[in-house]
Amino acid sequence: MAWFVTHLECVACGRRYEPAPELYVCPECGMKGILDVKYDYERLRASLSRDHFARNPERSQWRYFELLPLRRRDTIQDLQVGWTPLYRARRLGAHVGFRNLYIKDDGRNPTGSFKDRASAVGVARALELGAPVVACASTGNAASSLAGFSAAAGLRSYIFVPATAPEAKVTQLLVYGANVLLVDGTYDQAYYLCNDACDRWGWYNRNCAINPYLMEGKKTAGWEIAEQFGWDPPEWVFMAVGDGCSIAGVAKAFAEARRLGLIERVPRLVGVQAEGARPLVDAFERGGPVVPARAETLADSIAVGEPRNGIKALNAVRDSRGLMTAVSDADIVEAIHELARFTGVFAEPAGAAAYAGFKKLLQAGAIGADDRVLILVTGNGLKDIKSARRAVGDGRTIAPDLEQLAGIIEGAR
Amino acid sequence: MAWFVTHLECVACGRRYEPAPELYVCPECGMKGILDVKYDYERLRASLSRDHFARNPERSQWRYFELLPLRRRDTIQDLQVGWTPLYRARRLGAHVGFRNLYIKDDGRNPTGSFKDRASAVGVARALELGAPVVACASTGNAASSLAGFSAAAGLRSYIFVPATAPEAKVTQLLVYGANVLLVDGTYDQAYYLCNDACDRWGWYNRNCAINPYLMEGKKTAGWEIAEQFGWDPPEWVFMAVGDGCSIAGVAKAFAEARRLGLIERVPRLVGVQAEGARPLVDAFERGGPVVPARAETLADSIAVGEPRNGIKALNAVRDSRGLMTAVSDADIVEAIHELARFTGVFAEPAGAAAYAGFKKLLQAGAIGADDRVLILVTGNGLKDIKSARRAVGDGRTIAPDLEQLAGIIEGAR
Repeated sequence: MAWFVTHLECVACGRRYEPAPELYVCPECGMKGILDVKYDYERLRASLSRDHFARNPERSQWRYFELLPLRRRDTIQDLQVGWTPLYRARRLGAHVGFRNLYIKDDGRNPTGSFKDRASAVGVARALELGAPVVACASTGNAASSLAGFSAAAGLRSYIFVPATAPEAKVTQLLVYGANVLLVDGTYDQAYYLCNDACDRWGWYNRNCAINPYLMEGKKTAGWEIAEQFGWDPPEWVFMAVGDGCSIAGVAKAFAEARRLGLIERVPRLVGVQAEGARPLVDAFERGGPVVPARAETLADSIAVGEPRNGIKALNAVRDSRGLMTAVSDADIVEAIHELARFTGVFAEPAGAAAYAGFKKLLQAGAIGADDRVLILVTGNGLKDIKSARRAVGDGRTIAPDLEQLAGIIEGAR
Repeated sequence: MAWFVTHLECVACGRRYEPAPELYVCPECGMKGILDVKYDYERLRASLSRDHFARNPERSQWRYFELLPLRRRDTIQDLQVGWTPLYRARRLGAHVGFRNLYIKDDGRNPTGSFKDRASAVGVARALELGAPVVACASTGNAASSLAGFSAAAGLRSYIFVPATAPEAKVTQLLVYGANVLLVDGTYDQAYYLCNDACDRWGWYNRNCAINPYLMEGKKTAGWEIAEQFGWDPPEWVFMAVGDGCSIAGVAKAFAEARRLGLIERVPRLVGVQAEGARPLVDAFERGGPVVPARAETLADSIAVGEPRNGIKALNAVRDSRGLMTAVSDADIVEAIHELARFTGVFAEPAGAAAYAGFKKLLQAGAIGADDRVLILVTGNGLKDIKSARRAVGDGRTIAPDLEQLAGIIEGAR
């Protein structure tokens, strides 16, 4: 099996390391020293041609196996992940007066979110290492995806969640058989307790802030965008940003595809945050460091006040000549409804936020009329019926018989 | 564009009809005269070889376009429907001591259920006919799939639901922009009001009980099973049965594939109902007619007391030398949890019922040890978090610090 990883490199100090089971962050830099997986791109260039991909029958993220930090294929779970559908959103485009609008629906992944891409790689990696247990701190999509892939693999999983976590999300974890540990404190406290537990018991740590391999899974979404557009990617890609790891992953894919000569140009990335949780938008606009902020938004997947991959995210956006923007919860709720009504894609709030961000920049005149825009929908709306209800209110009509119905139908004309 | 439909044939009296826009049921037999779509299988045999399918790049139910009653491809919506994943369920099989267990996850369809297959065909057909509005009576998956595909197509949809319909399911309809009409009565009353409204205003009627084209969409699941097993389908297929249209559709696919020489043998079909709504199980066991029964089960998708395609379903099961069986709500709830824990597939109650039925027949000694069994999971568990919660209870553990956590972790060993 081909293995193209050359080393891990600290994003802070540039030191290089051999991949080793216990190595998460740079030992010199600590938590700031996130490690980036580096590959032998010269050797990859020889095998990864457009023809190679055209002939590849795999319809999942594993079609990019050579670009992933896995040594074996037999640790990959069957759960079909990635190669999510790309749609031309003609009706939605017409609604906002924009020609070339596209949607990629990552809510179609096995547990309903983009995070499945990362957890699929994390679980495969844990199996390679022989780790009996995987763990993460999250109430959201990272947790449910880890629980789902652990279930498929037969790995025990421990998920640390704040005691305030919504019942519905906890239910999904429990159904997959995860051990759910309520932490009587904030998300940050759950996060540190999880790290301590991983250190103490040798569990495999699926926290994107420190595990260098998860971003590699997220990367596959960017590869799919490049390939699904016939190696001529759109001018713009909009996606929601919380911790920042996802957009950094997508950016890495585009950089790799260009380096391998598969695409000539990378899309401009737009990171969308909620008004109530916009530390990266603020840092982008001010040009200064990332300052921890409050995190109050119904878009729980991006309700992050202290982004753990913020620098990587901002670098990714800047390098692409992209933008950061923030949208209100009211915009997000409206975006859920518009997306569903005009495309049939039902997104969770964070997924719809990407579309709300596009509308905002379109209205601001930032997008060229002939540009192509891709909205990456990162989560399924069925995960958050409560927010969807805010989008539609109680819009039902009582229609007890045909005559009264006639009044309604004909009255509406 | 190839069109292989020869005529519609009444299942009650055998009369033949040309497909016509207003023709739903047999005018002579009324509501009992469901029409079956017939094709020119001699002509199909010439074009549909195993090679034809092997070369077909389409990864959706539209790879069986020639076997569908559509004249045009341009009315097909982009929403990726069908060609859902097939998994070998090794861990779940080991759990129950059975070797060759497979799962096909139709919860991965665009709105989260098997019904998307039918609504996709129904909406395409409505567009061919130029109908401005589509309608159905349902609170469940048929409604959400119709609403989703109508949204994609820009068709107006009217959905008739009993006033008691759960808020969450109504929310999904409203998000897709459907006009939701609450009927202050039973499902049956909603059903008749919908039919009356379709007659009066010329809406396209997506009720499987009378629309002959919807079963053709459902058929594609059977075609996929045959093809995904390399044209050597499993000995058994288990699926939940409510109205009966879905299992009849799957049976039709196998019959067609055999007729076309693509498979040599059809699987034995097992229809699974809930103990609280088992009119077809009773009719199967008694050998008599279908007697309307009560319908009390948490598996709302199969909570049907008066199945509208019951005869077709029973014929399909009998012709396949299959069986009907019923499982309790407690079995279903346990099945949700087992499926998720051992496969990573989170099913709604009806989807899990199919697995519960398999366990029952396995324990009864009805399944050969070397047989291959496919469980068709027909709906996504995210659609019904409430039932999932019944499966897991409140299984969370409070873990406020590392020392207390150590007590929990090490105490559990």
